[in-house]
Amino acid sequence: MASAKPEFESVEKLLAKHVPADDLAEIKRIFYGKELPPLSICTEAKKIAENYDFEIQGYKFGARLEQLRAPRIVRTGLVQNRIVLPTTAPLNAQREAIHERLGNIVEAAALCGVNVLCFQEAWPCPFVFCTREKQPWCELAESAEYGPTTQFIQRLCRQYNMVIVSPILERDEECEDILWNTAVVVSNTGRIIGKHRKNHIPRVGDFNESTYYLEGNTGHPVFETQFGRIAVNICYGRHHPLNWLMFGLNGAEIVFNPSATVGNLSEPLWGIEARNAAIANGYFTCAINRVGTENYPNEFTSGDGRPGHKDFGHFYGSSYVTAPDGSRTPGLSRVRDGLMVVEMDLNLCRQVRDNWGFQMTQRIPLYAESLTRNISPNFKRQIIREN
Amino acid sequence: MASAKPEFESVEKLLAKHVPADDLAEIKRIFYGKELPPLSICTEAKKIAENYDFEIQGYKFGARLEQLRAPRIVRTGLVQNRIVLPTTAPLNAQREAIHERLGNIVEAAALCGVNVLCFQEAWPCPFVFCTREKQPWCELAESAEYGPTTQFIQRLCRQYNMVIVSPILERDEECEDILWNTAVVVSNTGRIIGKHRKNHIPRVGDFNESTYYLEGNTGHPVFETQFGRIAVNICYGRHHPLNWLMFGLNGAEIVFNPSATVGNLSEPLWGIEARNAAIANGYFTCAINRVGTENYPNEFTSGDGRPGHKDFGHFYGSSYVTAPDGSRTPGLSRVRDGLMVVEMDLNLCRQVRDNWGFQMTQRIPLYAESLTRNISPNFKRQIIREN
Repeated sequence: MASAKPEFESVEKLLAKHVPADDLAEIKRIFYGKELPPLSICTEAKKIAENYDFEIQGYKFGARLEQLRAPRIVRTGLVQNRIVLPTTAPLNAQREAIHERLGNIVEAAALCGVNVLCFQEAWPCPFVFCTREKQPWCELAESAEYGPTTQFIQRLCRQYNMVIVSPILERDEECEDILWNTAVVVSNTGRIIGKHRKNHIPRVGDFNESTYYLEGNTGHPVFETQFGRIAVNICYGRHHPLNWLMFGLNGAEIVFNPSATVGNLSEPLWGIEARNAAIANGYFTCAINRVGTENYPNEFTSGDGRPGHKDFGHFYGSSYVTAPDGSRTPGLSRVRDGLMVVEMDLNLCRQVRDNWGFQMTQRIPLYAESLTRNISPNFKRQIIREN
Repeated sequence: MASAKPEFESVEKLLAKHVPADDLAEIKRIFYGKELPPLSICTEAKKIAENYDFEIQGYKFGARLEQLRAPRIVRTGLVQNRIVLPTTAPLNAQREAIHERLGNIVEAAALCGVNVLCFQEAWPCPFVFCTREKQPWCELAESAEYGPTTQFIQRLCRQYNMVIVSPILERDEECEDILWNTAVVVSNTGRIIGKHRKNHIPRVGDFNESTYYLEGNTGHPVFETQFGRIAVNICYGRHHPLNWLMFGLNGAEIVFNPSATVGNLSEPLWGIEARNAAIANGYFTCAINRVGTENYPNEFTSGDGRPGHKDFGHFYGSSYVTAPDGSRTPGLSRVRDGLMVVEMDLNLCRQVRDNWGFQMTQRIPLYAESLTRNISPNFKRQIIREN
């Protein structure tokens, strides 16, 4: 059941439609931080985007020129996409159609000079967890090391000299066939650098993910790539400041947040959490959301009093990037597939840390002690009452 | 030196001026969350606001009616204000003029039915720390227990049956005359419930606060009042997610963030951090910022290459409240004194926690262990390299 009102394309387009330039500049300064220069997109990439009906946006995050350190420029890409075939199609055909579509988007990303690219959460599948059906959906889980999706990604990485973060539904074939929600990080050499399993699993709305997999057991790895140190905070982990913090303490410069979330649940939170994480931790964050509405063959209920229905609501896209100084790009479309290309100078991380001093002043020893006390069976809350 | 362009009043007024109602509703939904009903303000309070030239805004945060628990309605007030006399006036006159002005605003708050009121950081003083001058400014520090400001506040609390959070520059007369940045929490009975000292001290821009006082030693107290459990995260502490977290673990339902911050440093961050804290921790946050431009008798420099100057830049007000579901009020004015009155049902905290499950899924034991490992001398970052 689609909502009565058609989805609008983006809040940025609504603003640009109505607000004159000088007032728009103040509004954008307060809501988005400093103005970002656009990145020019080459004609070939634009042509692919037009042929295959997806959007490309590009921006630059500069940094001050330093005397003792060269700039460290990296081009980062974010991809958001709808599923291609209906969820009633054979699983193999569904997956291959998504592979093919993403292959075209990756080609455009390569033409834009992207060095590190990240896809949305569970990108080769529909986001099936609303259904609570184990079959046929568990069949879509793949080996992170040897599955067809990882093989497909490895070919792309080698072909385009690109690091790709590939979030999939993982089946751990070497450990009792358990399922995980996992991001596989593939080097520009085509070799797998490593993988990270989603640390925080939702139990809210139709996000019945804990029916399929549990909290990850891979800690907070940071992946050293030729282009910078990256980490992956998968979806619901963006609500958890401690998850973001640990990626920072482990040395991340860019943290991707591949997600899948729907409008009526989370849209007002979407611009807040990844952006807060960039500010608090002094790194870049890249928030990526699925787009479109997915319908399933069988009815399911949502635990909210509504009768059974077949759709998961509208995934609102709006993928965006935030710099450590809190400035952010506009979002990609709320309704269309898209590629966001962002050129960033990673030197900005340390420059902002030097200026604001959040890392120096964060008093980790105090909180290590406080949290340790909190989990002790003798924990008492520090509550002060009137005498 | 004032900026060439006059300061505009608020981003909300800019939006309302240009954007028609239906598109404005979508923009506000994305930027501010669900629409809040206004709270009607009585004529007597409006009259005081008019006579004394300050703004009043009022909003309601409702909650679902529960079967097993009555609503817990509290009216919370936030005050932002300019200093009254120039910083060249005798200290006593400066302080008394601010007391008198705040007395009038508190009377209006009482007429609005406010139960718990919070003032801005270091409210009885100009925000003198830009100067790095010890004299005469250290004289303004007062005993939290016996100082003239606390005595003034105690009288107001008794008179209006109101809890007041009074952030002052504290002198600890019983411990070697040390200075602190401290919030004193006074009960509606007029008795002091307790105090909290600012946990995180900035070293950025003109915020030379560490010249005067250091990191607080009072932990993360939550104050049990007749109207709910409250805590105080003073100013720069809002940049630290761990600080917010500990107030939550100690049971806070409302966390005040009395602040003093200027436009060119922090304005794009202002709407993000306190709001993220409300979402992540399942409580209400009340962010309060000083307003106006303060000029000092002697020149000071800002460590940014500019020549000596006498003003601290523009404190942009914009105080606002966020609910645990992430919805927020508009901001108070960027240029005028103001009182924000917010009626909230504290039952919303647990309702949002039940729905989103962030507390259940936050894995504190994992992070207690991770942070403890981080502070050990043998800490090694979890970095994964290509083989």
